[in-house]
Formats: sequence, structure tokens, C-alpha cells
Amino acid sequence: MNQPVELAALKKPLPEAFISPLKALFGDRMSTTQAMREHHGRDESSYDPMLPDAVIFVHTTEEVAAAVKLCGRHGVPVIAYGAGTSLEGHILALRGGLSIDLSQMNRVLAIDAADLTATVQPGVTRKQLNQEIKDTGLFFPIDPGADASLGGMAATRASGTNAVRYGTMRENTLALTVVTADGRIIKTGTRAKKSSAGYDLTRLFVGSEGTLGIITEVTVRLYPQPEAISAAICSFESAADAVNAVIQTIQMGVPVARVEFLDENGVKAINAHDNLNLIEKPLLLFEFHGSESGVQEQAKLVQEIAAEHHAAGFEWATRPEDRSRLWAARHNAYFALLQLRPGSRAISTDCCVPISRLAECILETKADLERNQIVYSIIGHVGDGNFHVQMLVDPNDAADIAKAEAVNSRMVTRAIEMDGTCTGEHGVGLHKMNFLVQEHGEDAIDTMRAIKHALDPGNILNPGKIIRW
Amino acid sequence: MNQPVELAALKKPLPEAFISPLKALFGDRMSTTQAMREHHGRDESSYDPMLPDAVIFVHTTEEVAAAVKLCGRHGVPVIAYGAGTSLEGHILALRGGLSIDLSQMNRVLAIDAADLTATVQPGVTRKQLNQEIKDTGLFFPIDPGADASLGGMAATRASGTNAVRYGTMRENTLALTVVTADGRIIKTGTRAKKSSAGYDLTRLFVGSEGTLGIITEVTVRLYPQPEAISAAICSFESAADAVNAVIQTIQMGVPVARVEFLDENGVKAINAHDNLNLIEKPLLLFEFHGSESGVQEQAKLVQEIAAEHHAAGFEWATRPEDRSRLWAARHNAYFALLQLRPGSRAISTDCCVPISRLAECILETKADLERNQIVYSIIGHVGDGNFHVQMLVDPNDAADIAKAEAVNSRMVTRAIEMDGTCTGEHGVGLHKMNFLVQEHGEDAIDTMRAIKHALDPGNILNPGKIIRW
Repeated sequence: MNQPVELAALKKPLPEAFISPLKALFGDRMSTTQAMREHHGRDESSYDPMLPDAVIFVHTTEEVAAAVKLCGRHGVPVIAYGAGTSLEGHILALRGGLSIDLSQMNRVLAIDAADLTATVQPGVTRKQLNQEIKDTGLFFPIDPGADASLGGMAATRASGTNAVRYGTMRENTLALTVVTADGRIIKTGTRAKKSSAGYDLTRLFVGSEGTLGIITEVTVRLYPQPEAISAAICSFESAADAVNAVIQTIQMGVPVARVEFLDENGVKAINAHDNLNLIEKPLLLFEFHGSESGVQEQAKLVQEIAAEHHAAGFEWATRPEDRSRLWAARHNAYFALLQLRPGSRAISTDCCVPISRLAECILETKADLERNQIVYSIIGHVGDGNFHVQMLVDPNDAADIAKAEAVNSRMVTRAIEMDGTCTGEHGVGLHKMNFLVQEHGEDAIDTMRAIKHALDPGNILNPGKIIRW
Repeated sequence: MNQPVELAALKKPLPEAFISPLKALFGDRMSTTQAMREHHGRDESSYDPMLPDAVIFVHTTEEVAAAVKLCGRHGVPVIAYGAGTSLEGHILALRGGLSIDLSQMNRVLAIDAADLTATVQPGVTRKQLNQEIKDTGLFFPIDPGADASLGGMAATRASGTNAVRYGTMRENTLALTVVTADGRIIKTGTRAKKSSAGYDLTRLFVGSEGTLGIITEVTVRLYPQPEAISAAICSFESAADAVNAVIQTIQMGVPVARVEFLDENGVKAINAHDNLNLIEKPLLLFEFHGSESGVQEQAKLVQEIAAEHHAAGFEWATRPEDRSRLWAARHNAYFALLQLRPGSRAISTDCCVPISRLAECILETKADLERNQIVYSIIGHVGDGNFHVQMLVDPNDAADIAKAEAVNSRMVTRAIEMDGTCTGEHGVGLHKMNFLVQEHGEDAIDTMRAIKHALDPGNILNPGKIIRW
């Protein structure tokens, strides 16, 4: 499969002067077993694993600070590990080093229902948070599909299906506690909803993928559970019709809570995987949040727009169990697709364009995939102009992999030429580093590099990711 | 009045080797007259002016880059000037230097109605933008009161009355063109609605007050004009009742577009200034945006909430001219107040707290103002937990000024202790530098300082603002 370039020349064995105090600090919570290192050397990307030399399980911010100080003293790379659900090689240990597993820092520290905020440790997952706040009448909307940890979601600037209405981690993170490269502990913000107080450190660390600091607390915004929720699906003759219906919905300002696109391949895969009988044509999956009458109003408008674009089989799901079934199927699409080509692995990618260019970008990408006879599906958070391509490849066939990567490269170039971005929500990791340069240009990358050099002069924090040193 | 500390030891006359090429580049668009320098050495704050040595009027990004390069070569401070409406001493030339006036860069470069975006030069004001996009059915919501320039609004992370519904410049700036301290031109983002592509340079420059780069283009989000708009005012027996009505409105998730608080002093002032007959008690001013039925639903709910808090005189303004009259009065409140104490000047400040603490914070601040017999008013974008205090002082009475500053200091401390921020929307400038440290702590300030040092190693960009070198 995809081989990450190991920075072998830079890889050094961990010195005993580093190991001993680490053992003294973490005892049983430190491991150097092969199994543990393998588990922490991979994510959900198509890359082969690259193992850290050691793993620790931390319980407090102070422990993270102590570990990072030790790493700094010995020049040991340090990689924050949350739930391992990243998609672009974010957590691969290119130069070995220490993986700091934050999954046991999984307490919800404060629920301030009156202020619509919660503060959590980074290992808390989004499902866990929603479970713990269920009785407050509030919910946390951001849903990237996987049950990711909130620390990881902040570090990746994650978003997902609800972002069209509620925004991404960028808009919904109020404050972070961060351990900096020199082992200091800083707070980047307060629980005030807005602030003009100095440089926006919160937004700088959100999306920095563990390269500028390690997030040890996250304060997020919560929202009142809507009075009414309703979901609908409808099918279209073509991807163009489906996407044009979405474009019109967004341009008219209909405040849809979710609007997901699945191409016919995605529909086929989930029909097979989840025993559903969806029409095997491009499909849109809508969700509406609001008052009873507001939801009805939105739904009526969207149904009219869909009809103009030749939608068929508009179906409602107002009962929670029907909605759950639909969303579970949507969330399973990734795994469902894998079953279409046994033995394959998926190369997964995403991009995001201004909404007016979305149909064009999807259709050209689709044509490219067809031309190259790749088994694929396109699935998207299309209300934001964001879509994903999953390509199934034979992990042992370099030509197959190269063909898929070439399609990916052309897709990203297409998105950038449309004034879009090389990744809407997956992040840069390893896989998008060249595209990041292509998108921003060398001078903007130099600005990012200056920040990295200033905040991590020893290059110990997740080295080799986002930008080249 | 308030005396900014001139960094006299650091102030040097402009060398001829700087002046000549600047003249060659800008000709008539360069000025060193006293009048021009005075105009560019003050803002709307209470500080006495501090003059730049020269002023240039730029027309292009490339001209800004050329000027900044020249400043860098000669170590000349450079201060970006937009509309001069900042409130905390942002543009005072503490060490002299060059004021770059961007007001003639006032073209709307692109209106992408289909994508709900516009790209403008930094001198375009918010009213101008709204005028130019009127026929597209879209509008730009952010309204800080003053007809500020969009470059200045981005640099200050401005917000205002509509932020409770539409967010601030943080949420609504998609991309910037920025001239960096070494005179390079970078683009910080694209027109994609969301992105996980690298460090969030857009959010870093938004709110950096000209200390990290000079903004020469701004791409903002636009919104469909709502189908229906309606406004209402109502009066309350006490500030506590008014604020508690707002807190409940927000906690219930009612998507009000604006909710403004004016205390009885503010109401008295605008009654006198605008010939109105508002009940001279604490007042809330609401605006609702949505569909016809959505607006009615919101308004009904808010009216019920207000009634629970003993509101009186609920009045509707659905006709545009009535709404305009109300909002004009609200926007005039600052100038109206000045007339309550002839010969006075206003010390203006703001803070922002989590919504559950808002009543407490306002009431304690109000009590402090009364105790100190200050002529004041409190006005707030209370839906965000953000409020302003205007204190009228005798500009020639140091004790009077000191008394007001002490109240300000206690207000900010109070807000910070409530997990709030020292400024919700005015920015740091000169006036809030100490409070910024108090809010963030020395370690977080060190992180900001490291960024400043990395991006402006010669300290030429608006030196002496936000953080100490």
C-alpha cells in the first residue's frame, strides 16, 4: 500500500536517559510492545503503519506537559493520539518517537447548560459527550461520521454532516488548553461567545494537527435540541440534478441542518450492506431542525426545489428510529463500499469548492473515475460544497494505487482552480502536503513555516506533517 | 485626556533615503502636512493624538508591498489606516513612522452572488458594500455601528448588533490578501466555505490589528436578505429584568437577529438627541429575520418571555422606515450621550461574558458607576453576553479620568473572573494591553509574542500594540 517516506536519517533510538524517567513517571501506562506500537502507528488512511518507539497513556494535562518537556530535552518526536480515526496519515510516526495516547483523558469536565458550553478532556468522543448532556436538552452537533475524540476533531478542524447549519470545529471551539512544545500549559480563550482579545490562538491550534501543541482540554458550544426534526430522502436521475437542487437550496438560504449526497455506487453499497431498498440512483438525504412549523416550511420548500430537478421517491422519516436507520446507513457507506471489492483498501480524499462550482467539480471528477475504471463512490456534505471520493485499490498493485492517486491529484487541482481547497475536513497529514503548497503558494507556506519554527523550534511536535521543515 | 506613552527613545526622524523613494513612488499621494498627520494620528478613543511622520494613500496591494519593503529596509514603523473608527488607540503612531491610508482602495472586486461571497478592497465600508450588493438579494450583516472599512473590521475582529445571529468577522471572513512584514503578498484562504488545509492564517490575521500584516483584500460571506424582517422594542422596570429576558431567549435557542440593551441613561440621551418618546427605563430592541411565519413565531415567543420579566410597552416596527428610525437612534447613542455633559469626552469600553453571568456583570458594573457618580450609559449586544460602558469625563481633570479608568479596570477584572474576555469587539489597541495579559496569562502571551517575533522580526508593523515586544 502507500509507503510513507520514513525520515530514516533522522530516526534515532530512544536514549536511556529518556526511557528511565518516562518509566518512572508512567510505570504500567508506558508500553513499548510491538502490538501497542503498531496500534498507534496507523490511522484510517491508506498508508502502511509507521511505528512510534513508545506509547504512554496520560491522565492529566500536567502529565502531558512532563512528557513533552522530556521529549524536548532529548529531541524525541511526540505525536498526540486520540481515537486513531484520521484519514490522511496524521499520526504516523515518521521518525519514531513517543505516542501520547489521550484516550484515557475522557472526562467531561463541565457542562454549563445555561451558557450552552461544555468543557471536556481530549479523549471524550462526540457520542460520549452527547450521551452525557442528553438530559440537559442540549446537543453537540459536529458529526464527522467516526466516533472521533474531541481533541482529535479540534486538531483536525473536523466537521461533517451538520456543518452546513452549525459550522465546523473552527466555529464551535471556544477555548483550548494546550501544552506547548516547551511543556508550558496555556489557555487559548474563555467561555465568552466572542472576543477581540489578541491573536486568535484557539483558531491557530484548531487544525494544527498536533504540530504546534497538544490539546488537553476543549471547550465547545452546545445547542438546544430542536423542537422538531425531520429527515427526507429523494433520488435523482443524475448527479447533476441532485447537486443543482442543493445549490439552489443553499442559495435560497433554507437553513437545512444536513444535506448529504450519495452517488449511485454509494447507494448500491449501503443497500447491500444494510439490507435497504433505496433506488440505486444519486440520492440526497436531508435533515431539518426547527420548530414544528419551521421544519414543515423548510421541507416544503426543499421538496419543491427537488421536484424542479426531477427528484423521485421523496420519502419522509420523522420517527427517530427511521432517521437513525438512514443515518447509520450513511455512516456505514465507507465500510459498505469496501465490500464491493473484496481484498481492496480505500484511498479516501476530500475537497471543498464554492457552491456554484460543485456540480462541475463532482461531474468532472466522476468522469475521470469512470475513465480510469476505478471502483469508487462519491459522497458529500454538499451543502458546504464539500465532497469525498473513496477509491478501492488492490493494496499490492502499485499501478492501481498510482492510478487512484493521479485521479486524486487531478481532483484537488480542479478544486483549487475553482477557488476551492485541497481538503474540506480531512486535514493535511502526510497525504495533502504537496497540495497545501499548491493551494496556498510558497509565500503563505513560508508564513505557516515561520509560525511552526517559532512555536516548535526543536521540531518535536508531530514532525513531517502539514509543512516541510 | 489620556496620554499614550510615547516610545520617545525609539522614535527617529525619517531618513532622507526613505523619504525620497517614497516620494518617487507616491508623489501627490504622500503628505507630511501637520493637518494630514493629525488626522491619521487619532481614532475614536479617549487618547490624545500621536502623529505619524508621513501619510501615503495607496491604490494597490503592490503599492502597499513596496511601501512596507521600504519601511522594513529603514526600520520605519508602519500603521494601516482604514476609516479611523477604532476605539482603543489602535492607530496611534507611538513611534511615528508611516501611516498607510487604505481608504482609496475602495473597490468591490467581485460579487459572487451564487456563492454568497464578495471580495473587496480594504477601504470599502460596510454601508458601501451593502449598497453595491443591494440588487443581488444578498446582504452583509456585520454592523459595528460606525461605517467602518472592511479591512479595519477584519483587523479588529469587529462584530456588532447582528453577531448574535450571523457571527463576527471571525466567522464571516473567508480569505484575506495580506502584505507581510517583509513585503510579500500572501492569500490566506479560498472561497470554499470550510477548509482543513493547514494553519488558519485567515483567523490569525483577523483581529491582529495591523501588527502581523496589512490586509489589502477581504473575502466575506453574504446572506440572502430575509423574506421578512420585524423589529420590536419593550421597556423593563430594571436592567436585571431586561437582561434576564435576553438570557432566557438565548437559552431557548430563539434565532433573534439582533437584541440590543440600552439602560435608562442611554434611552434618555437618544430621546433628547433624536426627539423620541421612549419610556425612560431599561429597554430591549429586537430584530427578527426569517420567513413571514418564522418571524411571527419568534416574535410571539420573545413577547411571552419579555412578559414573564415584566416588560411594558411592547411595540412593533415592521415598516422599514420605522425600523431605520429605531436603529439610527441606537447607532446615535454614543453621540447622544456626549451631549448629556457638554465639554466632556467619552471613555468607551467593552467586555463579554458567558450569557449566564451577564445580568450579574452588568448590575455590579452599574452599581460601581453609580457609586463613583460617573455620567454613563450601558449599551450592549446582550445576546452575545457583550456590553459597552461609556463614561463621560472632563478631559482636563486627571482625577475624573482616573476614576473612570478604575471603574473600567474593575469591570474587566469582573468579566475575566466570570470566564469572560476583556474585549468582545473593540480590540486591544493600547488601552487593553494589560488586561490582555490578565486574561490570557504570561505563557499564552509568550505564545502570541513568539508569533509576532516570527512574522515581524523588525517590529515595524503597528509597534507597541496588543503585546509588548
